[in-house]
Amino acid sequence: MGKEITSREQDYSQWYNDLILKGGLADYSAVRGCMVIKPYGFALWENMRDVLDRMFKETGHQNAYFPLFIPKSLFEAEEKNAEGFAKECAVVTHYRLKTDPNQKGKLIVDPEARLEEELVVRPTSEAIIWNTYKSWIQSYRDLPILVNQWANVVRWEMRTRLFLRTAEFLWQEGHTAHATKEEAIEETVKMLDVYADFVENWMAVPVVKGVKSPNERFAGAEDTYCIEAMMQDGKALQAGTSHFLGQNFAKAFDVKFSDKNNQLEYVWATSWGVSTRLIGALVMAHSDDDGLVLPPRIAPLQVVIVPIYKGDEQKQLLDAKISVIVKELKALGISVKYDDSDNTRPGWKFAEYELKGVPVRIAVGPRDLENNVVELARRDTKEKKSVSIDGLANYVKDLLEEIQQNIYNRAKAYRDSHITPANDWDEFVRLLDEKGGFIAAHWDGTGETEDKIKELTKATIRCIPLNNTQEAGACILTGKPSSQRVLFARAY
Amino acid sequence: MGKEITSREQDYSQWYNDLILKGGLADYSAVRGCMVIKPYGFALWENMRDVLDRMFKETGHQNAYFPLFIPKSLFEAEEKNAEGFAKECAVVTHYRLKTDPNQKGKLIVDPEARLEEELVVRPTSEAIIWNTYKSWIQSYRDLPILVNQWANVVRWEMRTRLFLRTAEFLWQEGHTAHATKEEAIEETVKMLDVYADFVENWMAVPVVKGVKSPNERFAGAEDTYCIEAMMQDGKALQAGTSHFLGQNFAKAFDVKFSDKNNQLEYVWATSWGVSTRLIGALVMAHSDDDGLVLPPRIAPLQVVIVPIYKGDEQKQLLDAKISVIVKELKALGISVKYDDSDNTRPGWKFAEYELKGVPVRIAVGPRDLENNVVELARRDTKEKKSVSIDGLANYVKDLLEEIQQNIYNRAKAYRDSHITPANDWDEFVRLLDEKGGFIAAHWDGTGETEDKIKELTKATIRCIPLNNTQEAGACILTGKPSSQRVLFARAY
Repeated sequence: MGKEITSREQDYSQWYNDLILKGGLADYSAVRGCMVIKPYGFALWENMRDVLDRMFKETGHQNAYFPLFIPKSLFEAEEKNAEGFAKECAVVTHYRLKTDPNQKGKLIVDPEARLEEELVVRPTSEAIIWNTYKSWIQSYRDLPILVNQWANVVRWEMRTRLFLRTAEFLWQEGHTAHATKEEAIEETVKMLDVYADFVENWMAVPVVKGVKSPNERFAGAEDTYCIEAMMQDGKALQAGTSHFLGQNFAKAFDVKFSDKNNQLEYVWATSWGVSTRLIGALVMAHSDDDGLVLPPRIAPLQVVIVPIYKGDEQKQLLDAKISVIVKELKALGISVKYDDSDNTRPGWKFAEYELKGVPVRIAVGPRDLENNVVELARRDTKEKKSVSIDGLANYVKDLLEEIQQNIYNRAKAYRDSHITPANDWDEFVRLLDEKGGFIAAHWDGTGETEDKIKELTKATIRCIPLNNTQEAGACILTGKPSSQRVLFARAY
Repeated sequence: MGKEITSREQDYSQWYNDLILKGGLADYSAVRGCMVIKPYGFALWENMRDVLDRMFKETGHQNAYFPLFIPKSLFEAEEKNAEGFAKECAVVTHYRLKTDPNQKGKLIVDPEARLEEELVVRPTSEAIIWNTYKSWIQSYRDLPILVNQWANVVRWEMRTRLFLRTAEFLWQEGHTAHATKEEAIEETVKMLDVYADFVENWMAVPVVKGVKSPNERFAGAEDTYCIEAMMQDGKALQAGTSHFLGQNFAKAFDVKFSDKNNQLEYVWATSWGVSTRLIGALVMAHSDDDGLVLPPRIAPLQVVIVPIYKGDEQKQLLDAKISVIVKELKALGISVKYDDSDNTRPGWKFAEYELKGVPVRIAVGPRDLENNVVELARRDTKEKKSVSIDGLANYVKDLLEEIQQNIYNRAKAYRDSHITPANDWDEFVRLLDEKGGFIAAHWDGTGETEDKIKELTKATIRCIPLNNTQEAGACILTGKPSSQRVLFARAY
């Protein structure tokens, strides 16, 4: 009955793929490394996007849209940024196809339609945006610019995984311009807080807020702030980043403004983004061996109702009662589907909606009607319960909030129990191999040590937590002095 | 005072560009033929998109997302479609840049990172979508598929114009799959009706619904339905198309389903789209020599309030009263901005909001407060009026609807007076040159005649109206018999 899902214990990676594919979130495509986001997965993304978009607007941002293509000469203007992305750029070199003279019905690239200057398909939009801001900014009166873009971007990754790492992905990228360094840093931190709020309170995934080590910084940034989440296999996942870009892009694109004293100054910048990768985080943080477990606040479907009956007469009785329940649920803003399709049996439907992670399932049969109850099953705990039809809608509304909270608490308990201090190298390696999670350890602050640790263990510094406790210690690898522990982990 | 706008009479084309650029809708970019959609323009697009998206969902459609890139071998599978778009395709040939060994800080395309198969940047997504549908459709139970995608597409146009024709543009493309021909045609017509509803009732632009002649059909379609609008310079603009694709794509991608009798059949298809081009139509249909005129139902900002005062004391009195008005307007769902910025004078603000097409402007000074009134100006008629503060919010709500209707009526009167029959060639040419608009004329039904007319006059058949009057006549060019008039026009 239903679709076979590999268990986490058996093969965690295959379990993840099974959930994405069989849960109807996404599909592989004919294009290397690119996926198709299926309607159920896209509805989830739409819910996430709408919440984030509202948060951005409430913090004073507006949306805009910039070109997909970046002329190579602009792309290379900010050297560090260009160097960071050059190895994974899709490049448009021609603007026309023509009929293949040697093969009927086939097309070839027209060699006469070669672009004078190649176009990079945006891996991120700082270059094209700062080139545009140059003409938008003259005076301090033009600042701040608080703009966000929802867009597709392309990074030619060699090893791809559905949602987690795809050659093309959907994201939002905020790009702001400020008159002062302080204001830009304030914006960077504010948007990190927005991300943390969203991921914790809507996706029910707890995060650690922190700052990246120089090695893990965004190419072209002065500082990269991040939120880091913990998956059920003990691996970390970077869920969002907010960059303080200093004056790097303003200098690369010569963007100056005249301040109140009529002095010309370079503009200060931030950029920040989250992507469809968050869906991967969501799936891996909450789901179980029966399928997806989706937080009610962003689930495409919150409640499904399945009728159990024999014959038309019973069906009609159920229809009448259930249509009232559906109406009451909708009146409370709850999304609900009455699945009375007759080409699959109730047991098949139960398995299917479990797989899809619908938070609440209601089953109703004729006997239930007689007793004025329904059978209600929670997706998160699998608990089943007989509940009175009187006041059902309000009961469900409260239950959805309870499920949201429970999923968060469960993920937080797991995450909290997977932050472990390590005080020497052996303990560090043993913890990584046997327990996983975040390892809080001293580090001497150098990129060389970080590289060496990565080479030896595949663990990286996920972040230096904000408001970190200061504590004298010795680097886990070199023994050199250190003033604070940082969080190491193997990561997606 | 304010920004200089070229008048329509002086230079219609420059007037249009002035409105787009100075009205803050869009900007040129560093990429040939691509534009930047600025926050005000994007807010307009968001409003349009949200209404359309709701309409699509209400008619049973779901959103999904398919790859930006189409492998050349898939792109060429449906021959007519491929042939139609081959000449304007951006092609990705490489996936990496590398440091230029001869020039420090410069990048070149890495010749070793050439793709085995070139990727076409989607000009439209039938190919990649039907290649995907192949794996989604086995049985009649999998049908219909009613999917829409919001996306960017690229068509390498040689002559571009802001919004009307850009190399990259934003659009939605519906792609549906059906078990029967009848159902697919029904869907095609249903979506045409949705488009007409949207363009007429939200954008306030009247349209003619019709079918394209074979010459003007979408490449790969059996029939292209369209809505055609009329601009203020007498040129037509295709505002949306809905295609009945027959089994062309199903055959090209071998997409079959087993019907209820277990027979294998090819699937029937439709596709339909509207784009950011609609913003061009909106601007050219309603605006005047002072700037944009936006229909209240989709305007990013419906009401602006400008205080007129001297000194802090007056300002405080105004703030107190206006904050109540703002609250009342918002409570009725009206978007309103209180522009009390002190770095520009009221006259400058008036001109700026006129340029931006804000439907209602309210000005308030201390004398007004004494009389318990505000000065209210309509953007559409320029009429000014003193209106009581009591009941102001409801007055404004009704006024916004009146403005919406008035803008539509005005555009419709213009359009209706610009559908003119022509009964011989001289009249046809004279009407085109002297009056413009749609010319209703007989045509012999051949592509050759249509081509010849286009060559001689630059006019094309915009459509054969749905439910067209049947009437015997003689082709305007060849004199051959014809059974109905079709609508010719010069077009954008």
